[in-house]
Amino acid sequence: MITRRKARRVRSGVSVAEAQQRLIETCLPLGTEYVAFVEAADRVAAEDVMAMFPMPRFERSGVDGYAVNLSVEEGITAGKTRPCLVVTEDISAGSNFPRPLDPGTAARIMTGAEVPERATSIVMLEETDEYTKGNRLYIQLKHDVIPGRHIARIGEEWERGEVLIPQGRRLGGSDIGLLVAAGHRRIRVYRKPRVGIISIGNELLHPRPDAGGKMDEAMPAGMIHNSNGAMLAALVRQYGGIPYDYGIIEDDAYKARDFIRSVALKTDLVITTGAVSVGERDVMAEVFVRDTCLLFNKVFMRPGSPTSAGLLPLTAPGDCGDKHIESGEEGEEHRPGLLLNPHSTHRLVLGLSGNPGACFVGFELFASLCIGALQGAPFTKKDALHAFLSEPVLKGSPHPRYLQGKLRGDAGMLLAEPLPHARSSMMRSVPEATCLIVLPGGGKPALKGALVEIIPLGGFR
Amino acid sequence: MITRRKARRVRSGVSVAEAQQRLIETCLPLGTEYVAFVEAADRVAAEDVMAMFPMPRFERSGVDGYAVNLSVEEGITAGKTRPCLVVTEDISAGSNFPRPLDPGTAARIMTGAEVPERATSIVMLEETDEYTKGNRLYIQLKHDVIPGRHIARIGEEWERGEVLIPQGRRLGGSDIGLLVAAGHRRIRVYRKPRVGIISIGNELLHPRPDAGGKMDEAMPAGMIHNSNGAMLAALVRQYGGIPYDYGIIEDDAYKARDFIRSVALKTDLVITTGAVSVGERDVMAEVFVRDTCLLFNKVFMRPGSPTSAGLLPLTAPGDCGDKHIESGEEGEEHRPGLLLNPHSTHRLVLGLSGNPGACFVGFELFASLCIGALQGAPFTKKDALHAFLSEPVLKGSPHPRYLQGKLRGDAGMLLAEPLPHARSSMMRSVPEATCLIVLPGGGKPALKGALVEIIPLGGFR
Repeated sequence: MITRRKARRVRSGVSVAEAQQRLIETCLPLGTEYVAFVEAADRVAAEDVMAMFPMPRFERSGVDGYAVNLSVEEGITAGKTRPCLVVTEDISAGSNFPRPLDPGTAARIMTGAEVPERATSIVMLEETDEYTKGNRLYIQLKHDVIPGRHIARIGEEWERGEVLIPQGRRLGGSDIGLLVAAGHRRIRVYRKPRVGIISIGNELLHPRPDAGGKMDEAMPAGMIHNSNGAMLAALVRQYGGIPYDYGIIEDDAYKARDFIRSVALKTDLVITTGAVSVGERDVMAEVFVRDTCLLFNKVFMRPGSPTSAGLLPLTAPGDCGDKHIESGEEGEEHRPGLLLNPHSTHRLVLGLSGNPGACFVGFELFASLCIGALQGAPFTKKDALHAFLSEPVLKGSPHPRYLQGKLRGDAGMLLAEPLPHARSSMMRSVPEATCLIVLPGGGKPALKGALVEIIPLGGFR
Repeated sequence: MITRRKARRVRSGVSVAEAQQRLIETCLPLGTEYVAFVEAADRVAAEDVMAMFPMPRFERSGVDGYAVNLSVEEGITAGKTRPCLVVTEDISAGSNFPRPLDPGTAARIMTGAEVPERATSIVMLEETDEYTKGNRLYIQLKHDVIPGRHIARIGEEWERGEVLIPQGRRLGGSDIGLLVAAGHRRIRVYRKPRVGIISIGNELLHPRPDAGGKMDEAMPAGMIHNSNGAMLAALVRQYGGIPYDYGIIEDDAYKARDFIRSVALKTDLVITTGAVSVGERDVMAEVFVRDTCLLFNKVFMRPGSPTSAGLLPLTAPGDCGDKHIESGEEGEEHRPGLLLNPHSTHRLVLGLSGNPGACFVGFELFASLCIGALQGAPFTKKDALHAFLSEPVLKGSPHPRYLQGKLRGDAGMLLAEPLPHARSSMMRSVPEATCLIVLPGGGKPALKGALVEIIPLGGFR
């Protein structure tokens, strides 16, 4: 019984923000690779992408109309009869080298087509009357002509060499278009992190994805299907990582450590679920304290306070490598500040709760940050957002709570509705959640209408 | 020159909402298929998923502590000495068939473990003092014991047969966890729509993804790289479709129609970009009017007013199949209300603008809806949201405008900031946009602080 008391004693808690900071410091971007633009969506740019040529690259018509060659005086007639121009050309988009325009003539021109030399302006179709005389087409201008109108100048949108996509941007569809428009077929991006997932607990049954459609109803009493592994794998993929679900291991601390190390050697980050609490079967609690350079093993939050993280040496057991890192003793600082790139010698292990609801919250608060940082996009979390509570939360808590909530807009205001019956052990409500509602600690209830911090989960659905 | 005037004349515009409605009516869900849970993320459920067993399936301890067998009177002592109990068992999660608990005894029990028969309550570790006497472990209770405390009852979270995942839900990571927890290894989902993408214009150069990293700087004057095809492919994938980029076709209406039909036979939706405007080279304008059962070829919006859509018969040219559909003549109704499933005989063709900015807006307003509806999730667009304009928009427009904007939260309020210099021909600003700001038509400027409708683009970034 001593073990349990001791394990609880060495836990010195940190705030969520401090825990996040310690994690990010250990997650330097992985290597880079080139991908073709067709494969670049959702990857993170590892370089500034510069324009290879100006945009437009040539003087371009912004409308369907007529390019005209008129002096300012001819164009702006101050009430006198407006000029008629003979149409000498028809320039469509993709026409090469249109002939220079003679004074007093016009060329039919399409949107996106190259403007002929000596054209002074483009007149929209609607601003002309067309008529034919003999075999020739003429236009009569209906309005004054403003010099330079509807001519997009070379470099108007961007100049050659301008940075169009900054390093660190997660590439969306419009970035891919921009990449091609800027003259690039490929882009250097950060490698996707390989994330090992390990579920711990003698009560877990592996769902065996290759088996039949439905689970065995006659499974032993006391056992549950391991759903966290499946959830974590999908979440890892959603945040740009490559999940490797290594299944279930038993409640044995030495076996757990050795297995985690073998997974760590093949991956960039290891996420465990379960066995981080204070019971003597909570072997991850033991592994973190004994075998890792501990980052934290208690976070001031509900749910998920036993969430833990540490750097596991890839070499000999128990070797913390850099001696500047202290192993976790009560009240001591053990931030790995002096480890320049721990990734070469250590592997970050993040221990999430086994309770599905708490596991989800831990993933969103911590694992998503790590996966982002390893891809060179540490701030995948949105800027701090605030919303008004649509319902009171009567039960206070000494520590900050992260409640599942629904975010909605109402006449320019953001409202956050706490989901009823959302407990850390439960997962039924989790898919309904579109945000986490952060309630500060201190034990007070939160009133309806209170302004609270929220963390959106994938935005509005 | 007649052609152009005529093409413009037959255009009877519809509102954005009406255009969306007409599109959705033609987009019935495609077939379904089973996928294993490991492949189910981001797919749309084609069936209600019911729980195969209750959750919990057995009485489960919610904490680490001691299961006790005490009568109400023994537990609630009203100031008298609290009982000491001998610990007779150690029940960890995954232990099968724990022995029934004798009166006045306790069993050490872990979170998630099966509660033994005749246990009346679970007492948290912290609420006991432990001591040993002889070889036996005893606990002294520190507080009163509330009957049933910390025992999760069978079915407390859900009962067998309850619907946990409703048909039509797009599956996130937590849905996948729920699916497994409910006893399922696979789920029936809607097939992903195959989306053919065709870019039209003689000025376009194919970016050739298999060629070197950078484009040829010596490309002909007047030509541009086709960036819309790449952008659309990435956007199609983002919304759950499978993109097939069929490259570029020239400005020839008959060739265009035949090519589009050949693509339509291999895909579920065809998106074109370019050539929908009023010039005689705008062959898609001609194809829509002549060869499709027109849904619309003008939308009251800026940018992208020539955005068009029609149902292309898969069989003989010009055959509209169902005679209840009128071809598009000015002012006439041509809604395909009587076509029960047009997908079997026709294929929806959506014609977006060739201007990158307008193409992007058209995709977000229309194509994303179609791709969602074909997957059985027609309402991928978020509920109507409103935000306050952070800057005035001085230039009014007779028609509603869809401006690129940045959405941010400020003390519980939503602010939308119009991006400067965002024109329909430009794409540089598009990746910066996190929302579209909808400015109503009517020609009036929009004031700073005005409440405007917004359409989030992938939520807050």
